[in-house]
Amino acid sequence: MSKMLKGIAASDGIAIAKAYMLVQPDLSFSQVSIEDPESEIKRLDTAVAAASEDLKLIKQKAAENLGAEEAEVFEAHLTILSDPELMGNIGDKIKNDKVNAEAALKDVTDMFISMFEGMTDNAYMQERAGDIRDVTKRVMSHLLGVSIPNPALIDQEVVVVAHDLTPSDTAQLNRKFVKGFITDVGGRTSHSAIMSRTLEIPAVVGAGDPTTAITEGDMVIVDGINGDGIINPTAEEISTYEAKAKAFSDQKAEWEELKDAKTVTADGVHFDLAANIGTPKDVAGALDNGAEAVGLFRSEFLYMDASELPSEDDQFEAYKAAVEGMNGKQVVVRTMDIGGDKELPYLPLPEEMNPFLGYRAIRISLDRQDIFRTQLRALLRASHYGQLAIMFPMIATVNEFKAAKAIYVEERTKLIDAGVPVAEKLEVGMMMEIPAAVMNGDHLAKYADFFSIGTNDLIQYSMAADRGNEQVSYLYQPYNPSILRLIKMVIDTAHKEGKWAGMCGEMAGDQIAVPILAGMGLDEFSMSASSILKTRSLMKKLDTTKMKELADKAVTDCETNEEVIALVESYMK
Amino acid sequence: MSKMLKGIAASDGIAIAKAYMLVQPDLSFSQVSIEDPESEIKRLDTAVAAASEDLKLIKQKAAENLGAEEAEVFEAHLTILSDPELMGNIGDKIKNDKVNAEAALKDVTDMFISMFEGMTDNAYMQERAGDIRDVTKRVMSHLLGVSIPNPALIDQEVVVVAHDLTPSDTAQLNRKFVKGFITDVGGRTSHSAIMSRTLEIPAVVGAGDPTTAITEGDMVIVDGINGDGIINPTAEEISTYEAKAKAFSDQKAEWEELKDAKTVTADGVHFDLAANIGTPKDVAGALDNGAEAVGLFRSEFLYMDASELPSEDDQFEAYKAAVEGMNGKQVVVRTMDIGGDKELPYLPLPEEMNPFLGYRAIRISLDRQDIFRTQLRALLRASHYGQLAIMFPMIATVNEFKAAKAIYVEERTKLIDAGVPVAEKLEVGMMMEIPAAVMNGDHLAKYADFFSIGTNDLIQYSMAADRGNEQVSYLYQPYNPSILRLIKMVIDTAHKEGKWAGMCGEMAGDQIAVPILAGMGLDEFSMSASSILKTRSLMKKLDTTKMKELADKAVTDCETNEEVIALVESYMK
Repeated sequence: MSKMLKGIAASDGIAIAKAYMLVQPDLSFSQVSIEDPESEIKRLDTAVAAASEDLKLIKQKAAENLGAEEAEVFEAHLTILSDPELMGNIGDKIKNDKVNAEAALKDVTDMFISMFEGMTDNAYMQERAGDIRDVTKRVMSHLLGVSIPNPALIDQEVVVVAHDLTPSDTAQLNRKFVKGFITDVGGRTSHSAIMSRTLEIPAVVGAGDPTTAITEGDMVIVDGINGDGIINPTAEEISTYEAKAKAFSDQKAEWEELKDAKTVTADGVHFDLAANIGTPKDVAGALDNGAEAVGLFRSEFLYMDASELPSEDDQFEAYKAAVEGMNGKQVVVRTMDIGGDKELPYLPLPEEMNPFLGYRAIRISLDRQDIFRTQLRALLRASHYGQLAIMFPMIATVNEFKAAKAIYVEERTKLIDAGVPVAEKLEVGMMMEIPAAVMNGDHLAKYADFFSIGTNDLIQYSMAADRGNEQVSYLYQPYNPSILRLIKMVIDTAHKEGKWAGMCGEMAGDQIAVPILAGMGLDEFSMSASSILKTRSLMKKLDTTKMKELADKAVTDCETNEEVIALVESYMK
Repeated sequence: MSKMLKGIAASDGIAIAKAYMLVQPDLSFSQVSIEDPESEIKRLDTAVAAASEDLKLIKQKAAENLGAEEAEVFEAHLTILSDPELMGNIGDKIKNDKVNAEAALKDVTDMFISMFEGMTDNAYMQERAGDIRDVTKRVMSHLLGVSIPNPALIDQEVVVVAHDLTPSDTAQLNRKFVKGFITDVGGRTSHSAIMSRTLEIPAVVGAGDPTTAITEGDMVIVDGINGDGIINPTAEEISTYEAKAKAFSDQKAEWEELKDAKTVTADGVHFDLAANIGTPKDVAGALDNGAEAVGLFRSEFLYMDASELPSEDDQFEAYKAAVEGMNGKQVVVRTMDIGGDKELPYLPLPEEMNPFLGYRAIRISLDRQDIFRTQLRALLRASHYGQLAIMFPMIATVNEFKAAKAIYVEERTKLIDAGVPVAEKLEVGMMMEIPAAVMNGDHLAKYADFFSIGTNDLIQYSMAADRGNEQVSYLYQPYNPSILRLIKMVIDTAHKEGKWAGMCGEMAGDQIAVPILAGMGLDEFSMSASSILKTRSLMKKLDTTKMKELADKAVTDCETNEEVIALVESYMK
């Protein structure tokens, strides 16, 4: 009999394939005194040899399927395994302390890891700490006789089952074979969810316990439209979902026809649908999905993908590639949004009790002006090659915006004086994601050229609820009238000063929110590229007069998130 | 020559006395192999004997100066020192492992500490872990030949110099001798600051590096009015500050005369000035300072001062004592506000990335209804004995308030059905400290009997800046127009439904804020008892028509915190 799991629909589509368990095994062990060091050392050697065999195979597969760069990391792991100092130390420990191989392995590698991690000014050595950790896991698994997952070896179509997916997990996955994701934890805005939408892989997150309910090789259906997972479906269920998959791909084909169309409502009003991107490489996907602009270029990816602060020239090339790729369509680049849950290995940030309420984004940029000025110069230089705009993240006060803008003006003047070409007109705006900034929207609109609403953070701060904390996830209420009222304030205060307002959070592509936002007169909707065509199709059905009425009712009459959902549904019937 | 330190004025008044360094010494050491275990054991015994001598003396002094209860903890420490198992284990370790006494002491005590701490369902054993930690420190200090501070031994007037003051530090201080505080870190709302105001001890916090700039026995002036610390003042400086101290005590005497007066403005408008309290014992101080009500009874202190969940009867007695003590004046009790930075040893909360945005206050109460219902029953029973009101902390949505209120109504009905006397009329309101709640103020005012603005949290969430994080402390801007606009919304939405609005944050007694709040028509100002008379004196000088004009200008014209301060100063000249 089949079994059903309910989760959160994180990425549209249906996947039907065998389960691949991306689950870390239990590598715990007891330290024991041993009598015969020689036989322990033999156990260690056997485990190391087996780990080497694994790595050689993985390296070869990774080179074939993922590319030379991805394969390199495994070469680094092999080098560690053949390091005489490390291995000699473990052998000595077994002999001297008369402990089992597991204990000696852990003791010695822990020492190296903490030594390398301690070199905080050396990104290269810090990465080596991560490599040693990975290699240790692999050898330990052979010592304990348990298997660890090797996603790079996947060579048939699978649904990946995981507790959660980290960025390094997803980097090793081959898109050709990974048909769907299902995870224990996460929400619509967790890394796994965002990644699955970027890769356009159907996904269900926060599905309870798939990692225990599913066994390697089980047949699994992932219904990323409704948020369902079906384990070992019946033949009937498979054919039902195959039909659903067909209907979904038909709908996608229909949406596909809207690719080159303008976004227009039933009553002929135009809205801009834009894409959120992380690197210039994402421009192709944005255009493929009919983006009319890039509403958010998350520049922090340039910093996170590097092993040191990216140079002005490297950044310039990336921004230039993005604006040139977009071919005259606007690209809004958000300056570095580091801190909170985003760390840079080479830029140690203070330990904080509440990092989401801490030293992050513009707060770092205003403090570390060296980093900020480099980024601004790169942006200004790139502005010559297309339609670029800049926005500052996490602005809370008028003084912060003015300070950031003043630094921008200084760098601009310096470049012009030096004869470097920069765009004549370049809009400088800000994210609206802090309640205090929204409350001062009328003042800020005098200084900023535009506002872009970041709903994830705005909701988290307005509700005082960490968006990553399961225990308070019930407070992530994007349609709560309090949030809608803040959004309306942003749009109204911008328009009053003749500025435009966009939104670059998940909410901009949300099918319940879009009718309300259109009714409020939001100018630009920026979302995951994969949501654009669906939203364009929805827009075609909307009448802005009716949506204005809907929006007014939502902010005036409704008291709760649920009431707003019911109201929108009654309007969209 | 004297040296000056600039800090934050945390508690009014001037102190001039010798420095007492409440600074933990460096207790680090190296583990070394030893040849002669017997001489190490002798070192250990000597250190233990010396520590016992300390403790006997401290215990005696504590009993004399602080009371029997405070002395008990030292008796517990003495018992640990004479525990043969613990001491025997350390001796064995020295013999078997051939290590120095420091290493053996740390190893063995660490083991006991982690064992006791692991008993998460046994508060008694968990407390013992803390005791062992304290005793270990003391023995270690004798082994290393460094001295640790013994605040219970203070027997002359001192200014206490510390990095920061913890609740357990302050518990050991004798008010008779401690004339002032000066600390390295902290802000106006940190524990040290709140405590110093409660104890009415002049204090300067966040003063940079007093713990390194000052040496034990230096003469120190603490100017808690301006936030200055003067090290080794000249004779001239001493006489200047003695004059200042005199002026301050004259002013206090003048304020004192307002003790039994009503709070009335120059144009005859009455406002309620109330006190914030933590336990029924604080009622005396509230009345002494002329409080017209208790605007905030922080009920979590009943939970934090206990070793298990306080019973319904224990809570009932505490609430009854408070309402009876206030003699017909209203006492607003806030239901348990645990979580965030407040932990209960016997109620393990989940580890959170951002505890201020996590599982706390009403979120816990709605989840752990057993705890919540017990508290509500105790409150309802106490309501029969005086003028009690209840408020819920951290309400974010209408649904949360309705859910909490429904539970209250259920318990009330059950008590009445059982024939237990409860007050006929008992107001049930809520804290306004989450931006989303403020935005839905019009809806919430239909259900809540009153609002009480909690400015510390409201500012922290609105600005997205942890109030305990030095790195973003510049964003703690109580006068920022965004914050003032939120406060105005709370007052206006309450009044529109015929409800009253109070404030129980630090801002309610702030001399810059009070004129604006009076102009906005805030009904109740609840503050540290020690701020009441000063505020009553200020109120006498205010004209509400002029203050209304001031408040309107502040929320309409001002763009920044600084502009608001300048505006108030121009009005108060």
